[in-house]
Amino acid sequence: MRAVARGFVFAIIFSASTLAQSGRVDLKKPLVIASQGSFFVGGEKKSNTPPPGGRGALLAAGDITVNQMYVQYQIPPRGDRHLPVVMVHGCCLSSKTWETTPDGRMGWDEYFVRRERAVYLADQVSRARSGFDASAINAVKAGAQPASALPNIIAATHQVAWTVFRFGPTYGKTFPDGQFPVEAVDELYKQMIPDLNALLPNPNPTWKNMAALAVQLNGAILMGHSESGFFPQQAALLNPSGIRGMISIEMPCPDLSAEQIATLAKIPTLVMFGDHLGDVQGGPANWAQSLESCNTYVKKVKDAGGDAVMMYLPQMGIKGNSHMLMQDRNSLQLADLIIDWIDRHVERQVKGQTAKGKG
Amino acid sequence: MRAVARGFVFAIIFSASTLAQSGRVDLKKPLVIASQGSFFVGGEKKSNTPPPGGRGALLAAGDITVNQMYVQYQIPPRGDRHLPVVMVHGCCLSSKTWETTPDGRMGWDEYFVRRERAVYLADQVSRARSGFDASAINAVKAGAQPASALPNIIAATHQVAWTVFRFGPTYGKTFPDGQFPVEAVDELYKQMIPDLNALLPNPNPTWKNMAALAVQLNGAILMGHSESGFFPQQAALLNPSGIRGMISIEMPCPDLSAEQIATLAKIPTLVMFGDHLGDVQGGPANWAQSLESCNTYVKKVKDAGGDAVMMYLPQMGIKGNSHMLMQDRNSLQLADLIIDWIDRHVERQVKGQTAKGKG
Repeated sequence: MRAVARGFVFAIIFSASTLAQSGRVDLKKPLVIASQGSFFVGGEKKSNTPPPGGRGALLAAGDITVNQMYVQYQIPPRGDRHLPVVMVHGCCLSSKTWETTPDGRMGWDEYFVRRERAVYLADQVSRARSGFDASAINAVKAGAQPASALPNIIAATHQVAWTVFRFGPTYGKTFPDGQFPVEAVDELYKQMIPDLNALLPNPNPTWKNMAALAVQLNGAILMGHSESGFFPQQAALLNPSGIRGMISIEMPCPDLSAEQIATLAKIPTLVMFGDHLGDVQGGPANWAQSLESCNTYVKKVKDAGGDAVMMYLPQMGIKGNSHMLMQDRNSLQLADLIIDWIDRHVERQVKGQTAKGKG
Repeated sequence: MRAVARGFVFAIIFSASTLAQSGRVDLKKPLVIASQGSFFVGGEKKSNTPPPGGRGALLAAGDITVNQMYVQYQIPPRGDRHLPVVMVHGCCLSSKTWETTPDGRMGWDEYFVRRERAVYLADQVSRARSGFDASAINAVKAGAQPASALPNIIAATHQVAWTVFRFGPTYGKTFPDGQFPVEAVDELYKQMIPDLNALLPNPNPTWKNMAALAVQLNGAILMGHSESGFFPQQAALLNPSGIRGMISIEMPCPDLSAEQIATLAKIPTLVMFGDHLGDVQGGPANWAQSLESCNTYVKKVKDAGGDAVMMYLPQMGIKGNSHMLMQDRNSLQLADLIIDWIDRHVERQVKGQTAKGKG
């Protein structure tokens, strides 16, 4: 097992060092889209009963829809040759995460399409175009609930973002080899929007919706980042049937039961971490500990016979990546690493299964 | 003046009746995009001072960015032959308004691109991917402000949407000639998300950001709907320099001063209203009154020498349109009407100016 893993790491280092020069696609060529659009997954009807003293007819009693997940997609021509990739953003962010980078380069959303993958961007339930359930806030406003019933809304400050996202050791300072385009950090700050996940029921409806989307797509690869880094696994624990691969970028990995690990071990898994995990002074995140917890998770999955890969980038010779590695200067190199992993670990297996099924 | 107006109405009736059959573009053909992406307009740094009793490091004191406007765009090849079109959604909605319709047809966003226009979708400030300023809610949670300081959050119910959007005379009932795809109304309900505009300063930052975007694009046509129907004008009253045309769909028109009318009269204006304005029983909207107020506005602009067109659809022989007319069954016919108006009233003028400037 160890020899295989080491061989794989060598292969990755080799491909990483050659990718930067190669350029897999012509980024300047017009983009051809077979189809695109948006839709919702999930959502339930809820009776909206405004407390006494309601304010105007738009807040009248009636039904509202909550817990729906907004999804935007683009499918390239020949997109059916590969599995679709579902991307879900992290805390205090929206699907903007995957689009044009703060310094104006192409995001992973378009790059994956140019690499012939159908891409689905989901706004987490309670965020951005998915909306949120305002009932708890309205109840406090009307005096039916105390102020303590208001949700904890996370509004990350510039100072917190700088250090949690590892742009440098302290606010305003950079790492000499840092890959994040700090000259455009103000554009990242505009992406940071209030996080209302504290309003959500348990389990988080985003997990169920991600699992349902994978089924709806007749098989998909789920990718999460940070707050949503383990969402592919949470989705798989609810319903693994549509999930063909799980990509988890920079998050703490929870301690799971043997039964849970057995379920997850059936799905190829990639975990990716950037650089400088222990080099930030203070702040609420402990990335070195997160890496350790995910090393344990990867080991458990492997021990259960699963295919799990840890790409700890500095160990592969790729230095200076921040937490927002899909926006870092070498973001497309990292996208290529992920796509190579999909081709080798997910689609080879899927094609094998298909061939077997047909044969 | 009256003869000219009547002639124009006849021309429109003629083109409307032929458009339905003609089909200006092949909707099945792959879509070719010269470039696409997303960015923010505006936004200011604000000091975030959590009240005493703050809850965890993510809510620590520091700076946040507020009032930024998220914009997503697609530019077709040869998109520079036409002015870009900026679309801004209405109350309790996001840019989803302009995308795939509830029953799965192509939205105006893609259709305008296929008709060779660059399209910019903006999420209003305080909504969707633009985020909102959570300070007021956090202050109440911490006890620094009373519950009455919470914003009035508009969460429109299914019942309110059905009647305000004129899907039928009462909830659950339809108009025999109704154009909205009511069989898919549940998908519209998922688009409806809480409206936090009550949090915004005055003037609404969306207006300033729309004006700034038009300047940034070196000239653009602004389109608004319902809550944002008059935003193109509000933007023009702040800074008209980038605004080449204004398209206002279904909203009340305010009473303006002669000076304001003089400013707006310099920019070609289209106002569009659907059908059954007086046929809904009860509800908070009075669409017949809105039409009347906009007829007055259009007349004032014309009297001031401006080019303003009222397309009151039933008067043009186009029946049954709801308030969500960009999602109605005949939505592409209406898009063609708008594009024809742009070609005749905005771009002919712009080209004339350009020719003059060059000659």
